[in-house]
Amino acid sequence: MKKDKKKINAAILIIGNEILSGRTQDLNVLFISNWLNINCGIYVAEVRIIPDIEKKIIFNVLDLSKKFKYVFTTGGIGPTHDDITAPSIAKAFKVKYEYNIEAYSILEQYYGKEKFNEARKKMARMPAGSQLIHNPSSAAPGFKIQNVLSLPGVPLILKSMMENLKKYLTKGPLIYNISINVLTVESNIAFHLEKVQKKYLKKIDIGSYPFFRLGIVGVAVVLRSTSKKLITKCELEVLKMVKEKKIKIYNI
Amino acid sequence: MKKDKKKINAAILIIGNEILSGRTQDLNVLFISNWLNINCGIYVAEVRIIPDIEKKIIFNVLDLSKKFKYVFTTGGIGPTHDDITAPSIAKAFKVKYEYNIEAYSILEQYYGKEKFNEARKKMARMPAGSQLIHNPSSAAPGFKIQNVLSLPGVPLILKSMMENLKKYLTKGPLIYNISINVLTVESNIAFHLEKVQKKYLKKIDIGSYPFFRLGIVGVAVVLRSTSKKLITKCELEVLKMVKEKKIKIYNI
Repeated sequence: MKKDKKKINAAILIIGNEILSGRTQDLNVLFISNWLNINCGIYVAEVRIIPDIEKKIIFNVLDLSKKFKYVFTTGGIGPTHDDITAPSIAKAFKVKYEYNIEAYSILEQYYGKEKFNEARKKMARMPAGSQLIHNPSSAAPGFKIQNVLSLPGVPLILKSMMENLKKYLTKGPLIYNISINVLTVESNIAFHLEKVQKKYLKKIDIGSYPFFRLGIVGVAVVLRSTSKKLITKCELEVLKMVKEKKIKIYNI
Repeated sequence: MKKDKKKINAAILIIGNEILSGRTQDLNVLFISNWLNINCGIYVAEVRIIPDIEKKIIFNVLDLSKKFKYVFTTGGIGPTHDDITAPSIAKAFKVKYEYNIEAYSILEQYYGKEKFNEARKKMARMPAGSQLIHNPSSAAPGFKIQNVLSLPGVPLILKSMMENLKKYLTKGPLIYNISINVLTVESNIAFHLEKVQKKYLKKIDIGSYPFFRLGIVGVAVVLRSTSKKLITKCELEVLKMVKEKKIKIYNI
């Protein structure tokens, strides 16, 4: 049954001047990609990082939404003037930007009526027809409209919300991942790796990544595939080549 | 004279399955953005992360090359089968993918004739008409063709090459950057920050970024501008607002 599952892709749209300016190190791409891989068998096929500019958000949300099964946006859903993701997505999909009754009620309860000021109320406004992604850290929910799922930019808060968006995703086939770390240089195995890759074209994705750690020079050969059978076969072939070339394996 | 300098933008195109799969944390966006800001007054306006797939590289190189003054690519210029950045860029610009005589000579000298095997020779092949970006770490040069500058993906090697591409860049106006860390929550300052932002629309970019550190909750208000005069004025206004609201400043 698993064999018939179709691969499911996604894009991530990071919205935030602070990432582009080099002020803040993005951590969400790595986290979301891994999370989707492991929990949903969904692979991230493209990432874009754009500034907090309405027309750029509109263009990229629509463009990615057409090209990929899911689009995850991060950032720009807080209470300040530079948080314009929600109204921009509403414009993109030509729906109203309005209070979501459920979000309003969650936030009112969280802050208490007196402290529920205008800035905080803003976090209850989203594209009409959105479904909520509940936020166990700081209450303000993310939202899903069409195939776009909007999350906050703060990594700790984002992480705490992932469980709550699982229900919106169709699962793809499990993605298997094998890493073989060898103590050699890339040029020594390049020819043979290419031969193996050609054999498993489109079935297995073989990556070659040099590493330098505490004076140790090596290459991580990474196999990725949705077929457990093929990836195991391919792993044996790489190991055979490594053995024939008398290359040592590096176990971290 | 500085006042007349036009703002100069750039895009970064990260090419590599390992970033999209969540295997590797990208560190190059932050480094390149900061480096360009500080050393060249160039700001990064967009980033894309794409897989090692020829048609995606071609599409994105051409698209970004049209939209931005400079495009920096990282990754995919090594010796293995998954390194396809150089031939893809050659196809994008409809030029030959061929040996660069200077690169060939550098690599031949670096490895010695006997160890200069086919895989290593591959690193001397690039789009016809490319100019070299010298690599003081591992010899294999990056290249520049039209407004596209191609660098390796390994952060340490990339960093060591930046000095050598300075000569290809036109400098923009210096970008000033002021961060005011305040011990409050965003919703408490949102209204006033928006007023200040409206006053300096398109002159100063004001960002608001909540932080949580060892139990301390605060907001970093970040001002960015090419005008020293305006940013100083704007800083005073933010500080005035902060004082009026009896908010403490947090000096890290």
